[in-house]
Formats: sequence, structure tokens, C-alpha cells
Amino acid sequence: MASISPAVVLELEKNSEASTTTSKFVLHDVILRVFLFATSLTSLVALVTSKQTETIPVPFPPYGASVAAEFTDLPAFIYSSAVLSVTCFYSIITTILSFSALVKRSTTSSKLMSCVFSVDVLLLGILASATGASGEVAYLGLKGNSNVGWHKICNVYDSYCRHIGFSVLTSIFSSMVLSFLIILYIITVSRR
Amino acid sequence: MASISPAVVLELEKNSEASTTTSKFVLHDVILRVFLFATSLTSLVALVTSKQTETIPVPFPPYGASVAAEFTDLPAFIYSSAVLSVTCFYSIITTILSFSALVKRSTTSSKLMSCVFSVDVLLLGILASATGASGEVAYLGLKGNSNVGWHKICNVYDSYCRHIGFSVLTSIFSSMVLSFLIILYIITVSRR
Repeated sequence: MASISPAVVLELEKNSEASTTTSKFVLHDVILRVFLFATSLTSLVALVTSKQTETIPVPFPPYGASVAAEFTDLPAFIYSSAVLSVTCFYSIITTILSFSALVKRSTTSSKLMSCVFSVDVLLLGILASATGASGEVAYLGLKGNSNVGWHKICNVYDSYCRHIGFSVLTSIFSSMVLSFLIILYIITVSRR
Repeated sequence: MASISPAVVLELEKNSEASTTTSKFVLHDVILRVFLFATSLTSLVALVTSKQTETIPVPFPPYGASVAAEFTDLPAFIYSSAVLSVTCFYSIITTILSFSALVKRSTTSSKLMSCVFSVDVLLLGILASATGASGEVAYLGLKGNSNVGWHKICNVYDSYCRHIGFSVLTSIFSSMVLSFLIILYIITVSRR
């Protein structure tokens, strides 16, 4: 019987441990990416379905004009919808990628992984900025600002504002999920 | 003379290569962190020095009222100034940490590194959201929005708006530097 040197045993043990850590990481990665998809899709749907038409009193006949509020009224919401669409699409692709790695019980190449997580970092920056912009407009719409004379609009367009508020909230969740994904990767890779 | 086994030579070569990569990474890390400090400080100074007083015509004597525009007039700018202060302070601490690693020609522990870069990720999300919020308010101030009846203010407060615009621009640079820092770390650690 051939004897196995202690160095080889140590290497095998190390490899087996690394494999367990990696498969755990891939599982968490898939779950977080599915969450990312769900939150970004919810946010996108809430944003694009935020249309509300209200009758505003006018001083001449017929004494009422129908004025619709849509998400396209404000550039921040258009930007947000574009970013959320990209996030949604991107999360589908990366979920498939991670899921295939999970099913095959193999890891995707470290080059591809670093590439995916670099794009994650860029996307986090863009998504967070879109969330910030939408959140600020939503806040201005809710509270107004007397210093610069911008009046609030949520006292008239209540359903519209609820949609926007929910969209901003889920968009914040999306950004958080994306952050957790990157932190998970950083911690896992650092332990190697 | 004791002979050295090929496995040990391979291990030593691998270690030397890894050491070169790491010292290169630490150098880039220090440079980027100094950049982060410079951009966030510039942005913060531009933001807090944005006060401008203008005489607005009023229909009663003395027919002119002095109205000051400050960064504290809008919640987005207060949020932004808080986040930029934190970024500035954080970049000083992490620059010292990285610089000491560069001088000692040793790497900081991988646990500490993963911790620092995890905080970087969180800070990126917060800084990008603050930049998005400030940028959106600056855009509204510059262009106004006829759909919701928010008038522009930059036709009156021109110097104020230039300060805010410059602050937003440098804040975008800060976010980009922070993204590059994280991407650099991800690529370096993945190559190990």
C-alpha cells in the first residue's frame, strides 16, 4: 500500500475545506441574487405603475382640469427606472451563472468571478445614486421646501406618492442586497 | 549542502510573486486613498462655502429684502455634507493604515483588509446615494420642473449653484475612486 505524505494530507484537507466554503458561498450568492432580482423588479413595477390623474380646480369653465402625474414627469424617476431595469436584467444573468455553478458543484473561474463582482461594485454605485435621487425627489414631494419655494405634491397625488415611496424603499433594499453580495465575496475570497 | 526540493522552490517562487503583487496593490491603494481624501475634502469645502446673499425685490418699503441661500436650506446637502465628512475622516485613517503597511513592506492581516474593504463597500453605497440626492437637487435648481411647478433658483443664486455643482462633480469623483479601490482589491485577491 502506498503511503501518503503528511504534506499531501494537509493539502487535501485544505482543498476539502476550501471546497465547502466555496459551495456555501455559491449557495448564499444564488439566494442573494434572487433577492436582488425580486426587490429590483418590485421597485421597477411600483415606479412605472405610479400614474395618477387628479382634477385640479381652475377659475374658468369647466372649473376643473384633469392633470396626470406620471413617473416620467421627473428626470430622477426616469433615471431610476433605467437603472432598475438594468439591475433586474443583470441579476437574472448572474443568478443563472451562479445557479449553474451550484448545480454542477463546480466554481466558475476566479477571473469571471472577479469580473462579475467588479460589475456589481459599479452597479452598486449607480443604483445607490439613483435611489438617492429618487428618494430626495420623493422627500421634496412629501414635505416640500419653504426655503426655495418648492411646494409639496403628495397632498394631492397620494396614490402616486405611495407608489414612489414603496419603489424607493425596495430600491434601498436592492442596494443593500448588492452591498451584502460584494461583502460576502470579499470575506470569502480573503479567507482563502 | 542541504538540497532544496522542487516543491519548496515552487512555493518560494509563488510567495515572491504574491509579495510583488501585494506591494504593488498597497502602493495603488495608498495613492487611491489619498485621491479619495482630496476629492471628498474639496467637495465638502465647496459645499459648506456655498453661501450667497441676494436682494430680492418686495412690493413694500424698503423694496428689497436680503435673502441668503445656504447649503443647510436643503436636507440633501446636509446629508451630503455629513457623508463627505465621514468619507474624509475615514480616508485619513485608511491612508495611514495602508501607508504604514507600505513603509513596513508588510501586509496588514487579511481579516483587517477584508473588514476595511467591507466598510468601503458600505461607504460607497452611502456616498453614491448622497451624490445622487445632491445632484438631483442641483439639477432641479438649475432647470426647475414645470410638471410639478418647482421653479429654478440658479438664475438668482449663480455663485451658490456653481459651488453646489462643483461639489457634486468632485463627489462623483470620490465615488468613482472608492469603486476603483474596491475593484482593485477584488481583482488582486482573486488572483491569489
